[in-house]
Amino acid sequence: MAESTTPPISVEGWETRKLPPQLTRRFDFDTYAQTRGFLDDLAELSEAVGNYPNLHFAKDFATVTISAADDGALQESEATFARQVNDLAAKFR
Amino acid sequence: MAESTTPPISVEGWETRKLPPQLTRRFDFDTYAQTRGFLDDLAELSEAVGNYPNLHFAKDFATVTISAADDGALQESEATFARQVNDLAAKFR
Repeated sequence: MAESTTPPISVEGWETRKLPPQLTRRFDFDTYAQTRGFLDDLAELSEAVGNYPNLHFAKDFATVTISAADDGALQESEATFARQVNDLAAKFR
Repeated sequence: MAESTTPPISVEGWETRKLPPQLTRRFDFDTYAQTRGFLDDLAELSEAVGNYPNLHFAKDFATVTISAADDGALQESEATFARQVNDLAAKFR
């Protein structure tokens, strides 16, 4: 099979990791209410689209890590999800 | 100053770390709804008592890490909080 010529997935503000294929971004917030608002909205989005990222958070930040499905390469669907997460976070910062 | 003779903080099910002083426990859940229910209740508890632990979660688990306040030793207040988190998690497992 020929090597893929698909350009690597890239999303503004997100770090792209290769092994394993992941998109990750830390969002800082001023207050816990903002952090929680973001997490609540992200939970709704996760249920709506069926993508449950790895989350790490405390009072004033949340780090979101989106993994490729089925141990494959990152797809445009993950990039789209990451952009949706950017839009959510922008509401709370 | 004499060395403290206070017994180390210990909470059932939690790992006690010394450097830095932390209590940590992973809770596994069957569904995202349970994970989210636990996180929502934990957020309420955090706001009620002013303790915002470090959280790491994905679809079916949440790891809670409680740090000592002000870089000091773990106190009974952190142990009490950890036991409250146990009680919350039990509602969703």
